[in-house]
Amino acid sequence: MAARGITKSGSSPSGRASLGSSGGACAAVEYNSSEPPTSRETMGYVIGDASSNDTGDPRNRPGVTKTRAFVIGVGLVGGSIAMALRASGRYEVNGFDVNPVSLRRAVECGALDGAADSLGGAREADIVLVATPLLAMPQVFAELGRCLKDGDARRAQSLPVVTDVGSAKCYVLALAREHLAPVVPFVGGHPMAGSETSGVDHASPDMVRGCLYVLTPAEWTSEAAVRVVARACEAAGSIPSIMDPADHDAMVAATSHLPLIIAACLARVVEERSVGLPSIWDLAASGFRDTTRLASGDPEMGTGMLVANAARILDAMDDFQRKFDEVRALVAASADTSPASCVDMARRFLAEARASRQAWLERTRFPAI
Amino acid sequence: MAARGITKSGSSPSGRASLGSSGGACAAVEYNSSEPPTSRETMGYVIGDASSNDTGDPRNRPGVTKTRAFVIGVGLVGGSIAMALRASGRYEVNGFDVNPVSLRRAVECGALDGAADSLGGAREADIVLVATPLLAMPQVFAELGRCLKDGDARRAQSLPVVTDVGSAKCYVLALAREHLAPVVPFVGGHPMAGSETSGVDHASPDMVRGCLYVLTPAEWTSEAAVRVVARACEAAGSIPSIMDPADHDAMVAATSHLPLIIAACLARVVEERSVGLPSIWDLAASGFRDTTRLASGDPEMGTGMLVANAARILDAMDDFQRKFDEVRALVAASADTSPASCVDMARRFLAEARASRQAWLERTRFPAI
Repeated sequence: MAARGITKSGSSPSGRASLGSSGGACAAVEYNSSEPPTSRETMGYVIGDASSNDTGDPRNRPGVTKTRAFVIGVGLVGGSIAMALRASGRYEVNGFDVNPVSLRRAVECGALDGAADSLGGAREADIVLVATPLLAMPQVFAELGRCLKDGDARRAQSLPVVTDVGSAKCYVLALAREHLAPVVPFVGGHPMAGSETSGVDHASPDMVRGCLYVLTPAEWTSEAAVRVVARACEAAGSIPSIMDPADHDAMVAATSHLPLIIAACLARVVEERSVGLPSIWDLAASGFRDTTRLASGDPEMGTGMLVANAARILDAMDDFQRKFDEVRALVAASADTSPASCVDMARRFLAEARASRQAWLERTRFPAI
Repeated sequence: MAARGITKSGSSPSGRASLGSSGGACAAVEYNSSEPPTSRETMGYVIGDASSNDTGDPRNRPGVTKTRAFVIGVGLVGGSIAMALRASGRYEVNGFDVNPVSLRRAVECGALDGAADSLGGAREADIVLVATPLLAMPQVFAELGRCLKDGDARRAQSLPVVTDVGSAKCYVLALAREHLAPVVPFVGGHPMAGSETSGVDHASPDMVRGCLYVLTPAEWTSEAAVRVVARACEAAGSIPSIMDPADHDAMVAATSHLPLIIAACLARVVEERSVGLPSIWDLAASGFRDTTRLASGDPEMGTGMLVANAARILDAMDDFQRKFDEVRALVAASADTSPASCVDMARRFLAEARASRQAWLERTRFPAI
């Protein structure tokens, strides 16, 4: 890796990464302006980038010692991040996938410099990115733990930082705690980018560009290790931000996992109704298309979310149920009695909902592209 | 109106419009191919279009007697259809809006040839399009009924056909039955196009182009009157299709009204959660954006849907609730016990949901653009 001048503008007294998560607010994203932060302001660190004035195709730049990344699972997300890291010119990216076809495709389409035949390749890396579906992670972390086991202090100096891209951070943190030796630094990660497609053939080096990239460092992980992961996020064009894993999980339960569930339920309702009313397929238009888009996602990935973040999702489903019951009561009253009596309630509910969505449009610093 | 050669390729023995709605299937959309029908095949009629070989800006074509349309309510939908009719060169479009600013804007932006100062202008029209919010329709139909009241048989010959664009067809049909004299032909209508924007400033002559345009003729309406409305749909670039109003309402309850409700509930859930977790706005990305898009729609229009189609919406909400309960049970089991026991159930549910959405993508002949 190129030598970097690192100026730390703030840290916790312990020298550990500061989670900055009191009261659910994430200190790391409390920027001063309403604009998306630039990468140099991120996380309270200022990272001097010695290579920022270089020109030409960075992959061909001579004399730069590249950071060695190892990607486990080269699907849509793993493949996209691998491509972005390679495109930065500062990473040599090798990887492994249990599916040999995916692995070969990842090399062919330029996501990887080289393919490994096992997880053992992780030992030679500076940073290991676990980008498998959540459901595969117990096995991956168990195997990774065996690969990286080393009691020798000198050897520990060169152990890679492990990170992942799963959407349930407490779940993955528990796996890391269970399987990784305490000398192996771990920083959970979750790039806030997605697509209903899957597989490396849909990967793009721009997938995470401009996106928020949540980092949830384990309590045994040093700031130096967090910076290794944050720099990789930045190299991929995303904006790293440290959060508390439980807060993250509560938030994505509502913004990501609950939407998947209601999209799936809605798609099922309409198909069941099509049995007696086949014309329903022609009446479903852009509203149906958008509200159900997430239902077209990879079921394996969705299953991982439902299982790995179950407790938080239950909370979000209960919140949703309360709102749904409110609406049902007013629609039922409208059907039973004079519609006029419910007009004001319905109007107020929908006006509040519009204001809620408007609040998101105005307050998010990472507008969904 | 230009003289047209009309060849009727199929009709009911009574000479009334055939609803073709047995068993919920809509005969009018049972085309022979899986391609979207062309306008000339629509509804089982073949309509010879004498002007199809004309060239040049149709609005400037000399010697064509234009059909006189009168639009009541020149917002997003009324304004868009008005623009499309004018652009066809075959319609002179006047209109009225209770909001004088909207009415003036409609003339300024070319949606209307002229603005009327009351509904009385409807008397001079060949076709009257009621494009107000559903909630305003009781008053509009009452007033329209008074305007068009005429016991004189000769006068009845020149009464306009009345149509509307509301998304609850039984509700509007009941208003027409209550307020319009039996000599006034009525054909309910619902263009399957929408947007979360509102107002004539967002109107576009292309809004309904290529879209399915559902027609639900009243039982007292002649085929000739239905053809007047169908020709207007075609002139606006959409594909008219006759359906049973109750079937229509059951279908849109699931494809359009239920999605609005769940989008609104989801937007509220996330905003309430933002109180303790302000970073949630940054974590809500493209999945949240799409699943909640309908919540940004006009609350007045949404309220009209909830109230005017309440009984059908309740059915759809109950269907949704059953699916939601299924998912909740498996997420709860996953949170309480070993996640592994629920993986297969979750996987099956999500795979079915993906297949359901795929079925829509494959079977709809009117892909949402």
